[in-house]
Amino acid sequence: MNDLMDDLDTPVVLVDHGRMLSNIARMHEQLCARGVVVRPHVKTHKIPQIARLQRDAGARGITVATIGEAEVFADHGFDDIFIAYPLWITARAAVRLRAISARAKVMFGVDSAEGIAAAAAHLASAARDVSVMIEVDSGHHRSGVRPADVGSIASAARSRGLDVAGVFTFPGHSYAPGHAEEAARQEREALAEAARSLADAGWVDVWISGGSTPSVLATPAGAVSELRPGVYVFGDAQQVELGHHALDEVALTVLSTVVSRSEDGDQRRVILDAGSKILGSDRPAYVSGFGRILEHPAARIAALSEHHATVVFPDDVALPELGSRLRVIPNHVCLVPNLVDEVVVVRDGAVGERWPVAARGRNG
Amino acid sequence: MNDLMDDLDTPVVLVDHGRMLSNIARMHEQLCARGVVVRPHVKTHKIPQIARLQRDAGARGITVATIGEAEVFADHGFDDIFIAYPLWITARAAVRLRAISARAKVMFGVDSAEGIAAAAAHLASAARDVSVMIEVDSGHHRSGVRPADVGSIASAARSRGLDVAGVFTFPGHSYAPGHAEEAARQEREALAEAARSLADAGWVDVWISGGSTPSVLATPAGAVSELRPGVYVFGDAQQVELGHHALDEVALTVLSTVVSRSEDGDQRRVILDAGSKILGSDRPAYVSGFGRILEHPAARIAALSEHHATVVFPDDVALPELGSRLRVIPNHVCLVPNLVDEVVVVRDGAVGERWPVAARGRNG
Repeated sequence: MNDLMDDLDTPVVLVDHGRMLSNIARMHEQLCARGVVVRPHVKTHKIPQIARLQRDAGARGITVATIGEAEVFADHGFDDIFIAYPLWITARAAVRLRAISARAKVMFGVDSAEGIAAAAAHLASAARDVSVMIEVDSGHHRSGVRPADVGSIASAARSRGLDVAGVFTFPGHSYAPGHAEEAARQEREALAEAARSLADAGWVDVWISGGSTPSVLATPAGAVSELRPGVYVFGDAQQVELGHHALDEVALTVLSTVVSRSEDGDQRRVILDAGSKILGSDRPAYVSGFGRILEHPAARIAALSEHHATVVFPDDVALPELGSRLRVIPNHVCLVPNLVDEVVVVRDGAVGERWPVAARGRNG
Repeated sequence: MNDLMDDLDTPVVLVDHGRMLSNIARMHEQLCARGVVVRPHVKTHKIPQIARLQRDAGARGITVATIGEAEVFADHGFDDIFIAYPLWITARAAVRLRAISARAKVMFGVDSAEGIAAAAAHLASAARDVSVMIEVDSGHHRSGVRPADVGSIASAARSRGLDVAGVFTFPGHSYAPGHAEEAARQEREALAEAARSLADAGWVDVWISGGSTPSVLATPAGAVSELRPGVYVFGDAQQVELGHHALDEVALTVLSTVVSRSEDGDQRRVILDAGSKILGSDRPAYVSGFGRILEHPAARIAALSEHHATVVFPDDVALPELGSRLRVIPNHVCLVPNLVDEVVVVRDGAVGERWPVAARGRNG
């Protein structure tokens, strides 16, 4: 870690520029080689500067989760935006979508006849460059319809004047050890059945959108039109423990200070000044703690409070000194930029510019 | 729920003004009756308007977790601030503390000889109205020294020119069913031993600070000088499931919309548009899900993604309609104001003013 970082107040989010570029290039090359469009999910970073790097590396369009994120990225010149979420369109939401559609091609998700009726009531005819994507449940059991029901849902949308562009799914059940292949198989079968259902209802040129960072590399050529990975740009401790990234490939860390230290009793531990208010507190059952430490692969974050990470060390590793600085790799990186106003860019080990998290907090 | 709320975009944080005032009054009356000073922890809300209500209800001084929070509250006229955290004082931190001390009496935590040396190197003699509080571990095993070691730590501080005001602890192990009484007992024994250690080292008029929302009401008169509860101002699902609040006493909720609905298979569920990016994802082992639903006490949040809450309903409860709005009670309320720029105040069921979360994101 470069001494230049001693001038930063901790905790602070660092983005390693070189590692990030490598992560982007590697993923895009692999997906482009299969003839798949990469439409990255920018909820992971919420930073226009990073979305531009993804575009420069071949991404076509972006994915967002909310109308608020779409507004911010449209303001920054992104003109092809998929809101991959089953929006419930109110009069207020329709006004906002129309304003975005004056600057960008917009697609958003629906997964019910009621959702289509609400969208049509407020949106139809007014927004020329807005279309809907039908969400399919491919096994994650969150939102989405059964694949066989897509044709009738799409016909209902068309009869109400909505343009249906295609189908999408999120195979979130890929986030468990050894599940990526099986989730990717279920994903492509669900999408294929959904596409057949649409074809039977008269659609041609159906756009098929899938993907999660763990599953995309298990998706063969020809199965989808586009993939929407998000986490790959940084990586995180979940991806490390799932085997998709090495520790030193992770591009986002939280620089933190050792503020307390104890060798009493049966637990050798230090306390870092990074807690759940900067790391997030996601902790799926398959991970070994609340994050990892870049400098100490054998240490584990056994507990997390709002401003304390309790880091436990094995007997054969010396405890770091009080006042020393460590870089924490968060479990789920998508939560972290959303907790800060800006990130500090590190180039070749030196502190560079600060990038505002332009879409931070845009939850709705 | 008032129809006026239909005009709000979801998800949005609502603060019920009447319930909040009741929560503040009830806690302050009970603690004042024991002759204890209430120094509320404002990290829970980070909103100066709420800290003023606490002051109007008898609070003396405030507690914060970071220098950044202290800066914001000093800017808003609060002149007695305890940073209840073992700060590691760098040159930059010392400059910031001195600036605060020009406007406010400041105390901060230390728990090591090294921490005292760092503070003395950068701070001593420059800051007249800054003093330190020695942190004691009372059984939570996070930061803090052994009670018997307080006298020697305090003497080291004095010999380096630092003013030692007293001792503090956080009995965080009170956050488990049935643990509040035992944690409160351990807290007062640890603080009493620490105070004796200080008295033996020559101190008189030692200030003794304790408290967590679950444990404060188990703390008898005479055991402490002040208590630092935070969560009590709102309550949350953790407090409900620990038995410290009723569902309808909780003053902060997240208004959200039903965006997806499924009665397929063996799980009857709806998806709400509030996820971990507004609710936080704390989920201790003793709670029944990722939050509760004010309108449906029998429903449970079985899963949480960034923008989806998966709410499962028992067979005998009708699923809410698509597009309807529900109020989510978060598990751990301290994470929620930190995720939004402002909260919407509700008075007598009607939407009122918006209060900015002035200290949001002030992690360091």
